[in-house]
Amino acid sequence: MFITTLLNNYFCVVKAEIINIGDEILIGQIVNTNASWMAEQLTNTGIEVHRISAISDKKDEIYKALDLAIKNSDIILMTGGLGPTKDDITKQTLADYFNAKLVFNKEAYHQVKELFELRGFKVSDINKKQAEIPNNCTPLQNKNGTAPGMWFEKKGKIIVSMPGVPFEMKDLISNQVIPRLREKFKFNIILKRTILTQGVGESHLAEIIENWESRLPDNFKLAYLPQPGMVRLRITAIGISEDSLQLEFEHEIDKLLALIPDLIFGIENDRLEEIIGKLLAEKQQTLSTAESCSGGYISHLITDIPGSSAYFKGSVIAYANEIKEQVLKVKPSSLNEFGAVSKEVVSEMALGVKKLYHTDYAIATSGIAGPDGGSKEKPVGTIWIAIALPNNEVIAKKYLFGEHRSRNIRKTALTALNTLRKELQKE
Amino acid sequence: MFITTLLNNYFCVVKAEIINIGDEILIGQIVNTNASWMAEQLTNTGIEVHRISAISDKKDEIYKALDLAIKNSDIILMTGGLGPTKDDITKQTLADYFNAKLVFNKEAYHQVKELFELRGFKVSDINKKQAEIPNNCTPLQNKNGTAPGMWFEKKGKIIVSMPGVPFEMKDLISNQVIPRLREKFKFNIILKRTILTQGVGESHLAEIIENWESRLPDNFKLAYLPQPGMVRLRITAIGISEDSLQLEFEHEIDKLLALIPDLIFGIENDRLEEIIGKLLAEKQQTLSTAESCSGGYISHLITDIPGSSAYFKGSVIAYANEIKEQVLKVKPSSLNEFGAVSKEVVSEMALGVKKLYHTDYAIATSGIAGPDGGSKEKPVGTIWIAIALPNNEVIAKKYLFGEHRSRNIRKTALTALNTLRKELQKE
Repeated sequence: MFITTLLNNYFCVVKAEIINIGDEILIGQIVNTNASWMAEQLTNTGIEVHRISAISDKKDEIYKALDLAIKNSDIILMTGGLGPTKDDITKQTLADYFNAKLVFNKEAYHQVKELFELRGFKVSDINKKQAEIPNNCTPLQNKNGTAPGMWFEKKGKIIVSMPGVPFEMKDLISNQVIPRLREKFKFNIILKRTILTQGVGESHLAEIIENWESRLPDNFKLAYLPQPGMVRLRITAIGISEDSLQLEFEHEIDKLLALIPDLIFGIENDRLEEIIGKLLAEKQQTLSTAESCSGGYISHLITDIPGSSAYFKGSVIAYANEIKEQVLKVKPSSLNEFGAVSKEVVSEMALGVKKLYHTDYAIATSGIAGPDGGSKEKPVGTIWIAIALPNNEVIAKKYLFGEHRSRNIRKTALTALNTLRKELQKE
Repeated sequence: MFITTLLNNYFCVVKAEIINIGDEILIGQIVNTNASWMAEQLTNTGIEVHRISAISDKKDEIYKALDLAIKNSDIILMTGGLGPTKDDITKQTLADYFNAKLVFNKEAYHQVKELFELRGFKVSDINKKQAEIPNNCTPLQNKNGTAPGMWFEKKGKIIVSMPGVPFEMKDLISNQVIPRLREKFKFNIILKRTILTQGVGESHLAEIIENWESRLPDNFKLAYLPQPGMVRLRITAIGISEDSLQLEFEHEIDKLLALIPDLIFGIENDRLEEIIGKLLAEKQQTLSTAESCSGGYISHLITDIPGSSAYFKGSVIAYANEIKEQVLKVKPSSLNEFGAVSKEVVSEMALGVKKLYHTDYAIATSGIAGPDGGSKEKPVGTIWIAIALPNNEVIAKKYLFGEHRSRNIRKTALTALNTLRKELQKE
């Protein structure tokens, strides 16, 4: 584990444990995404998570889990078991465990009351009961629900109980728990950025940036996260001083940006269809698509973005060759001589839709998505992509993707969108 | 917990615990989907999972987890920590824990050899080492990898260690672990089916089937699982005798099918676009779509199905009104008088693409996906859907979905596909 290995070289390690209470996890009804989200937040804060447990909402299970956790960890974060029906059991169990009594807490009550008044509701007796908490804990304000978080300290250990509803828990972790933990402990600084690349596969990308990667400082780590049609690069750095680490971090990322400017299209959760939309809107230019093998997926990605009607006029999905001829005006001779999957046909498709829809740019795709339809000359995964430019020049390129239909469709769409992005950014 | 509550009324409960070894879970890099899949399989077999733990690949962590699990559970299933680089540590830890020695196991070796010969590879010394396992365990054949599963028995408890690679683990659980557990323990019979409905929301559906639901036998449970554009109904039944439970189960499901035949389109992982594809292929009929608000998503769903080119000719994505007029031949007077989101326009779109693409059926959509573009008369979520039939009759209906753009697009697509399904199944 890179981060914890490195942590050992810097400040001493603070150990945490996550306990998720909930039968829906134990019967496999839901995937425990709370745990992975919490683990990531703690890891990014510089805390080592060394155990995650999902347990049932029963007194003896909670006791056992707490006994084990307090013996082995500095910080214990619990979620779940605070729903309106089960509320009393879990809260009472925690009170018993920490030798406390459930008492009405004014602070907790005011938090609930505030939330209700904001929404125009009256506080009921049941809600008033939710303000009863163990008398030796600090209530943490839950901005999104009626059950407050509860912060216990025992023998130098921190134990926090929170609701399991993801958006309630996330707000408590980000705005209450982690800031309070930072006051109690001294953590290392961890910086992370995910750089999005499109155009080459993982192993080829690794070759291109080999020199940069091998010269990264020891406190840096690079992870390759491939997805169909793109490779995400996650860069992590660890240090003690925020300012000097930030400088070092940006310096290394600048070097990477200079190395592969064409391949990088964004960071974190950027989407190509959103970037293209912004570029087109800025230029007040329009787009259409003529899709064969991608079957409308490019059009779907583009129109999933709010406001896309400002620059996107529409598409011709030409799955059948007769549509390519009759609607897109592809020459019958091109189809006969070169086949539908060819430079000639994909270029004529792009120009055809551009003319029909009166747009400045057009994207066209034609290929063999699979699993059937391949031949020796044109195996499954052979895809032609064309971009028609405002001056009616066409850029067309052949790609050889893989065997898997849905992945080929996704790769086609991302490659086409990235090709267009590069053209839009050329000026 | 319904199943375990009921279990208490039948055979006695067999308790299981899942231990997932892996740092990638603890740093939040991956979501622990292995755990939820395993928990579901065990629950469906009639076993109560009462704890799931994710721990680090370290000797003392594995020891602690095993100590706790053996004290509390009858069955302990472990995954991970058997990768080629970490192999020795985990296997050695298990050998130490069970007072055993790592010895070369002929059976395990033959399993690896067989797999390699099938793939045309030679067995290396490293692979040979993978056949070294603790001398008091039974190797379980891993058909998809080189690390065998290991089955230990200690004081009447079963402990199984498996690789963490999902498809290797899944095959071992389904084909080795659960059949062997069935030989050791007597489990209750659990039957499950997920019924897919489209057309009404969760609460309306609940009203329609209220009488049926309230008369379900006590050993049955119904769960509503809503998704954008569909509600899945999961029916679970528990019993001791397989034959009589099966009869009772089918009887109740038949009653539901008779109650809402129009709303049900499939079971389990059925997809509407696949069902429609089969119906069109059988009838040797063709389809096209004219999409405004759904922006190509219907076309994408249909063309994601292999072989869809046999019945799907393509689409006109008419995002701009001029395309509706010029390409789909929607009358300018209809657009002016009724607006793009109207019965008249969506009907003309359906007939327009049907004529242009020479298809038997056509789907058309026009609506306000949001977040902008709504008005008092036509708020965000107002969607018109039309189906043109072979005789040029058009079925058009207005829907009022929600506020969320992506969900509105998804709901539009599923509603359109389900309307077409009902027409295709009418004869």
